[in-house]
Amino acid sequence: MNLYVINFKGQTTVEELMNPEKGSPGAGEDMEAAESFIQQAMEIILQEAVKKATNVKEKVCEWRSPEQLKELLDLELKDTGESESKILQCCRDTIRYSVKTGHPRFFNQLFAGMEPHSMVASFITEAIKTSLYTYEMAPVFTLIEDALLKTMMKLIGWEEGGDGLFNPGGSMSNMYAVNLARYRYCPDFKEIGIYASPRLVILTSQEGHYSLAKAAALLGFGTKNVYVGAVPFFVNATAGTTVLGAFDPIDEIADICEKHNLWLHVDACWGGGALVSKKHRHLLKGIQRVNSVAWNLHKMLMATLQCSAFLVRDKSCLLQRCHCAGASYLFQQDKFYDVSYDTGDKSVQCSRKPDAFKFWLVWKAVGTRELEYRVDRALALARYLAQEIKKREGFRLVIEPEFANVCFWYIPPSLRNLPESLELWKKLHTVAPAVKERMMKSGSMMIGYQKHGDKPNFFRMVVISPQVSRQDLDFVLDEIHSLGKDL
Amino acid sequence: MNLYVINFKGQTTVEELMNPEKGSPGAGEDMEAAESFIQQAMEIILQEAVKKATNVKEKVCEWRSPEQLKELLDLELKDTGESESKILQCCRDTIRYSVKTGHPRFFNQLFAGMEPHSMVASFITEAIKTSLYTYEMAPVFTLIEDALLKTMMKLIGWEEGGDGLFNPGGSMSNMYAVNLARYRYCPDFKEIGIYASPRLVILTSQEGHYSLAKAAALLGFGTKNVYVGAVPFFVNATAGTTVLGAFDPIDEIADICEKHNLWLHVDACWGGGALVSKKHRHLLKGIQRVNSVAWNLHKMLMATLQCSAFLVRDKSCLLQRCHCAGASYLFQQDKFYDVSYDTGDKSVQCSRKPDAFKFWLVWKAVGTRELEYRVDRALALARYLAQEIKKREGFRLVIEPEFANVCFWYIPPSLRNLPESLELWKKLHTVAPAVKERMMKSGSMMIGYQKHGDKPNFFRMVVISPQVSRQDLDFVLDEIHSLGKDL
Repeated sequence: MNLYVINFKGQTTVEELMNPEKGSPGAGEDMEAAESFIQQAMEIILQEAVKKATNVKEKVCEWRSPEQLKELLDLELKDTGESESKILQCCRDTIRYSVKTGHPRFFNQLFAGMEPHSMVASFITEAIKTSLYTYEMAPVFTLIEDALLKTMMKLIGWEEGGDGLFNPGGSMSNMYAVNLARYRYCPDFKEIGIYASPRLVILTSQEGHYSLAKAAALLGFGTKNVYVGAVPFFVNATAGTTVLGAFDPIDEIADICEKHNLWLHVDACWGGGALVSKKHRHLLKGIQRVNSVAWNLHKMLMATLQCSAFLVRDKSCLLQRCHCAGASYLFQQDKFYDVSYDTGDKSVQCSRKPDAFKFWLVWKAVGTRELEYRVDRALALARYLAQEIKKREGFRLVIEPEFANVCFWYIPPSLRNLPESLELWKKLHTVAPAVKERMMKSGSMMIGYQKHGDKPNFFRMVVISPQVSRQDLDFVLDEIHSLGKDL
Repeated sequence: MNLYVINFKGQTTVEELMNPEKGSPGAGEDMEAAESFIQQAMEIILQEAVKKATNVKEKVCEWRSPEQLKELLDLELKDTGESESKILQCCRDTIRYSVKTGHPRFFNQLFAGMEPHSMVASFITEAIKTSLYTYEMAPVFTLIEDALLKTMMKLIGWEEGGDGLFNPGGSMSNMYAVNLARYRYCPDFKEIGIYASPRLVILTSQEGHYSLAKAAALLGFGTKNVYVGAVPFFVNATAGTTVLGAFDPIDEIADICEKHNLWLHVDACWGGGALVSKKHRHLLKGIQRVNSVAWNLHKMLMATLQCSAFLVRDKSCLLQRCHCAGASYLFQQDKFYDVSYDTGDKSVQCSRKPDAFKFWLVWKAVGTRELEYRVDRALALARYLAQEIKKREGFRLVIEPEFANVCFWYIPPSLRNLPESLELWKKLHTVAPAVKERMMKSGSMMIGYQKHGDKPNFFRMVVISPQVSRQDLDFVLDEIHSLGKDL
């Protein structure tokens, strides 16, 4: 095999290049080798990262400690390149030792499952390699982002539309909301900073996502100005908290915010998926009244990572006015087309990926009704699991599930007859980490755990993917018992 | 064709699901349909987004106005899904009307060309669909990010290492630098905000990237506190400016910063690529002395978008201390492995993509020497182009190129004999936009233009990809003349 070619080395030297007697050859031969490499890699991806990774009979993860994994992988980067076959082996190993988040028994995060349309759309965005600065650089993706945002706004209930952007993650979307609210409160902040302002505070619940604290620190408010303090200007309501899957009552909060002219943002990164379901959208009752929404389509709706929308009801170009810097080399005003299609300056990023396509294609392919079916199915399965937990000895629900999070303790036989006491709780606190270690090492499934307030460590199951069956949920409970019964 | 299956609809209804008499069927049939869809889409990607998109005989773009494109694409999202063949046609259309950034005649941005290893690595990260919160969620990618950052630090010259992260874009990396510097200046800012502080200012040159202004606004300093003011704490030096490709003298700036204890950050997003070249790394002389570096591997080194490293010389966990929020459901301290491998809390994001892999695989495959060859080749070609511009009538360099940016005016015959006057410059100002419009509509190539200070619109050519030949550069000049000679 000809490394020379794969490495684009079939070309002239730099010295030859500058010699006017010699031309540079075309890239034809190189491209053939590149195509053959890509084709072989695609086959590996299909076999290993799609077929095998979603097969319930295979492991969810092939656990290796950092030290073991460093030995297994040859991570060093050298002066000279490796052969094609070695690189293809790197690809196989990378897939092999990565966690299979598309596996039907992966329940560890607020994303799971394999969505074939979204995977394909991601491949296309990667192959196209462009950025959403300007219409001329991303004509199709600009229009697709616009179409998807508009459809989402309809689901939210903003009859007159609004504005929005896809961001690298929900934390960024929440940060955008805080920044827009501050800008609306006092547009001078953009130029003069917040030195001269009264102490501004951000209101959220204890269950709100930590991205609000990160935003407060980054944006110069300080984390202590989240929750309590002087002049409130921003309220965050959470639709689907991370651990418990709880929903703040948006309508009631909106009443107060409207009265006091506070910016109301809804962090619906996780719970936004319920908006496609007639049965469950009541969880977000009142969302049409809020100023802004963060909604991650890569969570309940299974887009590939990341696919995070930030939507704002304002129609006075607040997003543009708040963030614009007007770079001359991108946002020329003497272009030959309508420059309102150049969305890049609404973002605090420069390059921004066309993430919207990764869900637009899913929606196009399956339709709203199938999205609704998937959400309803996931929530029905979560309820099924909660019922099973109540039936089984040694399992106890932390809280009745409102959404797709099912939080529960496993109490091994040795602890079952102990009286409810601090000592029991202390012992119980060690059970989930111990079961998790055994789970990871066996690779049979993946579920998260955490402590929460004064509650000892408990498991958090998250049901998302239509590839999950009732049998998979029965397996989870059986397996936890089998891994932890001797503790 | 069976839409039912592709859409995961082969499964039970929600009602059946909750009926204990009926099990839910396996996902086997669905998966077969999904695999067949992915396989067909991969073939389209290979043919259209790889082969055709890099073929010099094809167009760089197939220009359509927003109105025309909306007519051509059926963007509406409906209640029911579309057939597999319609979705595959959507994929073909998306590729067809997107700009071909891998085409040898695409010179419009600071990225270009098709890097087969990086493309394959992107496909793998998309298929694996994971996030770099914790080692358990991304074992391979955590180690790969670490290995790549360490190799980059060696190139920078930080013998004792440091810390770092990959971010969604260089703007984010620059923002991180400002935030870390502020935190080091006064750690209280994280909790109490900047209300009580003296007016802090950020120093950068007029040529610095607009992300610094965006960072100043977002972080609460205000854009007016970039350049002039009260207490300087942060200095940005640019290694490779966006338009002209100019380099600030790092060594001289470092002397001043060391004297006054100012944080020195180098925005090497564009120019960092020169560090792999023995011949050109002098452009960044002194970089080993700075506090932090932003370096985008997706620009000169051709990784797929985005692949942006932020590197910090500090070894006291500043990145962790400045950004941590300690979410209990991710960063449990009672894990069974060394939690220093959980890098997620160093980030202001929550989900963070394994972008490092997209360049690690390139480096592994081709080796440092080939990276060096590519950079040297690109800079030699840029110099060749500058020489040609000097030779040709009607072309004039704006400035002698330091890097891979070649900025020049095209002066059509009608303007060649006019005296150098304000009137000539006003007329010249309209030439580049007019040529650009014709260029986009013919789809023959893509080059950016902008005005700059008081200089009228000029073209900015950027040479990056080894797929570009001298003939392509000759073509660029011929084509500009042919498109603009009647203006």
